[in-house]
Amino acid sequence: MKVLGEIRVIPVPMTVEIVPGDDLVEELIAALRHHKLNLQADDVLVVKHKIVSKAEGRVVNLASVQPSRAATVWAQKIGADARAIELVLRESSRVVRQKRDVFITQTQHGFVCANSGVDLSNVDGGKSAVLLPEDPDQSARRLRSAIKKRLGVRVAVIVSDSFGRPWREGLTEVAIGVAGIQPLVDYRGKRDSHGYKLQGSVEAVADELACAAGLICGKLNRTPVCIVRGFAYRRGSGSARQLVRPAKYDLFR
Amino acid sequence: MKVLGEIRVIPVPMTVEIVPGDDLVEELIAALRHHKLNLQADDVLVVKHKIVSKAEGRVVNLASVQPSRAATVWAQKIGADARAIELVLRESSRVVRQKRDVFITQTQHGFVCANSGVDLSNVDGGKSAVLLPEDPDQSARRLRSAIKKRLGVRVAVIVSDSFGRPWREGLTEVAIGVAGIQPLVDYRGKRDSHGYKLQGSVEAVADELACAAGLICGKLNRTPVCIVRGFAYRRGSGSARQLVRPAKYDLFR
Repeated sequence: MKVLGEIRVIPVPMTVEIVPGDDLVEELIAALRHHKLNLQADDVLVVKHKIVSKAEGRVVNLASVQPSRAATVWAQKIGADARAIELVLRESSRVVRQKRDVFITQTQHGFVCANSGVDLSNVDGGKSAVLLPEDPDQSARRLRSAIKKRLGVRVAVIVSDSFGRPWREGLTEVAIGVAGIQPLVDYRGKRDSHGYKLQGSVEAVADELACAAGLICGKLNRTPVCIVRGFAYRRGSGSARQLVRPAKYDLFR
Repeated sequence: MKVLGEIRVIPVPMTVEIVPGDDLVEELIAALRHHKLNLQADDVLVVKHKIVSKAEGRVVNLASVQPSRAATVWAQKIGADARAIELVLRESSRVVRQKRDVFITQTQHGFVCANSGVDLSNVDGGKSAVLLPEDPDQSARRLRSAIKKRLGVRVAVIVSDSFGRPWREGLTEVAIGVAGIQPLVDYRGKRDSHGYKLQGSVEAVADELACAAGLICGKLNRTPVCIVRGFAYRRGSGSARQLVRPAKYDLFR
């Protein structure tokens, strides 16, 4: 029995291997039909970035990469593939930390994460690397409008990736692209039931939605898409860049 | 219709005001009955720490606090209440950043967060502060065993709080206490469908569960508890301390 106010996180398994040039929405619609799932108005579709990147051709064969001297030196030091390190450097706007085998960079989009989001898993066994989408907000918007066009349903879309965090172990999902949803909800100035005015309370709902989906969209289970149903989000033309803290407020720079 | 593999996040509204000495499980059972909800085996119960802290008496009337000189100086500088700052310092094991009006500390438990988790909201309009539970794992274990005893159901329990993150705007929920669940799932060494051996893949599922619940357990809606149902977690006597990165691996110290 459905409970008032409950949220459902519904897996959309996709066994097909997405390759550059694929029409992701067509594959998604096929998967929905196969699993007898419908999208409903105001669903949030959370899509792991990897299938987005693959469909968009953001896959680089390592054999085609000529590593720079900096990449070669660092790769030798930590026992990594210099060509992968080269991609990490190319995708970065600055290096945040470079210590032991950990390489934390800020990406061209502004996200701070390990290896500029360059990832060798779930591609082709280590021969190629997948990069983050060039403009994940735009990827989300494209998916959203194609879904509206082909299925007639207005949904929100979140493109997600797994990031580490300082001070805490383990990765959690974050939103790197959004469409049709305000990623932050600002409670500041609102009063609690005791009349106290809330202060630091801005909630990163897009990241929490990504995490809810992350419980299902695993590393090994071929479920790169989830539907989050029943969450009353604020619509709007938000951007995942709103989740990036501006440099002047960054205490860890 | 329930979809295979779906997860449900079910709100448990509790309108009663928890005060020190209250039997939290009794209040929870009353709320479940009132809303005609049942707990089921292997549900994850996510509980906002504030009601736990309140029940455990971790509420301090600011009028009873004598601020130290350090607290007074800092409070004057940023226009804060010196007594609240005093509590932040008492609850901290070290100051991580102290800049503008932001005060980031490591708590006695090891968590790095703003203001040592000391919070004036949702108490009594600013006269008192709520501290984090002294031992949130133990709080979770107590809740879990009381639920087993009184309802005969084995659940996992997560005690959660909202933390900020470097580089990203907005708060997300994190697990500060766990019982009956392994908070981390380690995929390292496992192979993806292309035979590639996964590397940095440790997932902080307890934090993702806290986030899923955080979508419902809001700041203003008097829903301090959620049931997450259908998530295949790994049972075990985990601790939220496993989510704290050891100092020697901390790149931001």
